[in-house]
Amino acid sequence: MNSQDSTTNFPRVVIIGGGFGGIQLSKKLRDKEVQVLMLDRHNYHTFQPLLYQVATGGLEADSIAFPLRKIFKGQSNFLFRNAEVQSIIPERKVISTSIGEISYDYLVVATGSDTNFFGSKELEHYTMPMKTIPESLNLRSMILQNLEESLIEKDPIRKSALLNFVITGGGPTGVELAGSIAELKRHVLKKDYPELDMNEMNIYLVEGSPVLLGPMSKQSQEHARKFLEELGVIVLTDTRVSSYDGDKIVLSNNQEIATKNVLWSAGVKGEVPEGIPMDRIVRGGRIKVDHFNRIDGYDDIFAIGDVAAMSTEDYPNGHPGVAPAAMQQGQHLANNLIKIINKEEPEPFKYKDKGSMATIGRNRAVVDVGKIRFQGVFAWFVWMFVHLMSLVGFRNRLVVLVNWIWSYFSYDRGTRLIIRPFNRESMTEDTANK
Amino acid sequence: MNSQDSTTNFPRVVIIGGGFGGIQLSKKLRDKEVQVLMLDRHNYHTFQPLLYQVATGGLEADSIAFPLRKIFKGQSNFLFRNAEVQSIIPERKVISTSIGEISYDYLVVATGSDTNFFGSKELEHYTMPMKTIPESLNLRSMILQNLEESLIEKDPIRKSALLNFVITGGGPTGVELAGSIAELKRHVLKKDYPELDMNEMNIYLVEGSPVLLGPMSKQSQEHARKFLEELGVIVLTDTRVSSYDGDKIVLSNNQEIATKNVLWSAGVKGEVPEGIPMDRIVRGGRIKVDHFNRIDGYDDIFAIGDVAAMSTEDYPNGHPGVAPAAMQQGQHLANNLIKIINKEEPEPFKYKDKGSMATIGRNRAVVDVGKIRFQGVFAWFVWMFVHLMSLVGFRNRLVVLVNWIWSYFSYDRGTRLIIRPFNRESMTEDTANK
Repeated sequence: MNSQDSTTNFPRVVIIGGGFGGIQLSKKLRDKEVQVLMLDRHNYHTFQPLLYQVATGGLEADSIAFPLRKIFKGQSNFLFRNAEVQSIIPERKVISTSIGEISYDYLVVATGSDTNFFGSKELEHYTMPMKTIPESLNLRSMILQNLEESLIEKDPIRKSALLNFVITGGGPTGVELAGSIAELKRHVLKKDYPELDMNEMNIYLVEGSPVLLGPMSKQSQEHARKFLEELGVIVLTDTRVSSYDGDKIVLSNNQEIATKNVLWSAGVKGEVPEGIPMDRIVRGGRIKVDHFNRIDGYDDIFAIGDVAAMSTEDYPNGHPGVAPAAMQQGQHLANNLIKIINKEEPEPFKYKDKGSMATIGRNRAVVDVGKIRFQGVFAWFVWMFVHLMSLVGFRNRLVVLVNWIWSYFSYDRGTRLIIRPFNRESMTEDTANK
Repeated sequence: MNSQDSTTNFPRVVIIGGGFGGIQLSKKLRDKEVQVLMLDRHNYHTFQPLLYQVATGGLEADSIAFPLRKIFKGQSNFLFRNAEVQSIIPERKVISTSIGEISYDYLVVATGSDTNFFGSKELEHYTMPMKTIPESLNLRSMILQNLEESLIEKDPIRKSALLNFVITGGGPTGVELAGSIAELKRHVLKKDYPELDMNEMNIYLVEGSPVLLGPMSKQSQEHARKFLEELGVIVLTDTRVSSYDGDKIVLSNNQEIATKNVLWSAGVKGEVPEGIPMDRIVRGGRIKVDHFNRIDGYDDIFAIGDVAAMSTEDYPNGHPGVAPAAMQQGQHLANNLIKIINKEEPEPFKYKDKGSMATIGRNRAVVDVGKIRFQGVFAWFVWMFVHLMSLVGFRNRLVVLVNWIWSYFSYDRGTRLIIRPFNRESMTEDTANK
């Protein structure tokens, strides 16, 4: 590693992943007596909460991504390497990567989560996940390609399959995607495809449990459902996917829907690197950590964010897989690492719940903050403000704001482009999931 | 074709290509008694003059592209099909396409131009062209990937090959690309890669003729060269590429440069569909047309823009391959088509030269308008204004303006992201050239 040229005698903290947790951790270690080495397979940070707007043509991909090197510009104890981690070898205190072996004094796993197909190869092959920017661009291309194809399809069942959308999972991602596609249909597609009868396009949201937005208040859950139904989404709760062969989805209520568009947002699992013993993996594929984010059995390997499960009284299965939890753990771990290096006692992590929110469409959002709940127009503005302020980079905020204002007044989406046509058959592991 | 459902008894004008010419032609045919059917392999119009800013991280791809369907929203005699044309069959008045056969009454070839490697398979395989959005995104990814790789490369020759850039062709594209990469090096890379010695990065611009910007005034040619040299670009005129094997380029002056980054902007050729007789193809692979843009030997097949060569007194080899020429031909042909349909005499095309310009970098541009020539800051503002106003769509103008203002004050580029890693070996015909 060249990076060692610029190494001082400071201990090296290697951070795998430039998500919300990894970034906060690295920032907090600025000016501290450590060398920080961050690895990520992308050279940018992804603002995942807005991926659904990239997928549905509302935002350009570049405005929700930010170059990792730029975040740490001028931070002299920080190094970045664009690399893929292959495995952790704790015995030798090294990780094996696509650019060679890298040694660590302290290792932090901040790899986040990936789509969970619950072991189904069929679902993994035929449905569309949306956890990365390339995936959301594939989704955008597929939606638009299927609409184009529906124009020249004569067979009524195949045509209907091209026009039907099934979104699985009633969490924030599923709800936001379903709402966004419903608005696309209502305001944009009608004008873009005057030849199509928009009544032939159906949007289904399928959720296994009895409610949408599980962890939110009853009030917000009911409003979300109402908002979606106002937009014409067919909401099917208490319903699961039984099978899907790429043309027809079968649901647990025996309903069959011809569809080429199944968007999979029904589950996530921790993205655990090889080398972490299997017995440390708990529910949701997360790594069990103690109250200091330390992985059981190691005193120099930590995990934060979505990939970590810290069992506490309030959160026996770990904290929610949301950005604020990852950010707080990153900041907290930075302080603890310095304490550990200085042989002081680390402090246990305490999660401050900042509330949760989801947007369904124009003027339609739901917000829970502690005991305060509100829905509708004001909630929608709050949602936009919070997301805008959470974006990294002034340019990104400006570009997203311009797009939102423009869309608000024009009822339009700016970026419905098939930049790279999606072709399921030519997808490789490399292009599909990264 | 479903499209025939909405057909009236109007004659059908089929337009191949949604570039500057095709768009103007279709717009001018609005409210006329014809059915317009446009085909394009992309669902968007590309503003090619700004591709180099996408390639060098200054603009998001989506801001220089515009959905074709949206341009013609509400134009009731217009249909769009996202399809690839395979061949023209004039005997039967049909074209064969990826979505089946389509019949025409009048056919307009507005396919533009593609990169000309002058028959060299080696150059086609190893150098990077930049005529489409996917190509400019590949170029962006390649530049950034090679920089990342140079950080971990120990062999000095291989490292130097990763850092050296050779741009071929001293036309506007080559000049703008070279200037843009030089500014990237000067203002951005120095901060992003503090580990790299920026003196190791060399940028060469290689041009076969004795001057840059061939068709422009001597004054502008000399200023362009001076501006580039001020930015540190090594300008080699009277120099051609002898060979390139992917690692080392050999020039006609016997100079050898180790480089993995060869950007090919040394030539274009008309993109002629199959079925046009070979004897109609002239210099630059363009189709010979008469003064009414009619292809010799046909009274119902026309060609406009880059792909057409109309020999006139002032332009014996055809008009310059620039947007204004294509736009003027498109508008003119619309009027002539109506005349022809009404059995009136068509009028010969007359090109109005609006001048030419090129930008080298911040505050550095050259402009020729008739006898008026100016260079420097004012020229740069004129260049920006003209390009901004030529972009299709208010949202695009706004987003580009925001990016330009932000870059002006921050000396930064917003979008240096490797969204889809470039991998030469896995490139197929499909992903590489479209």
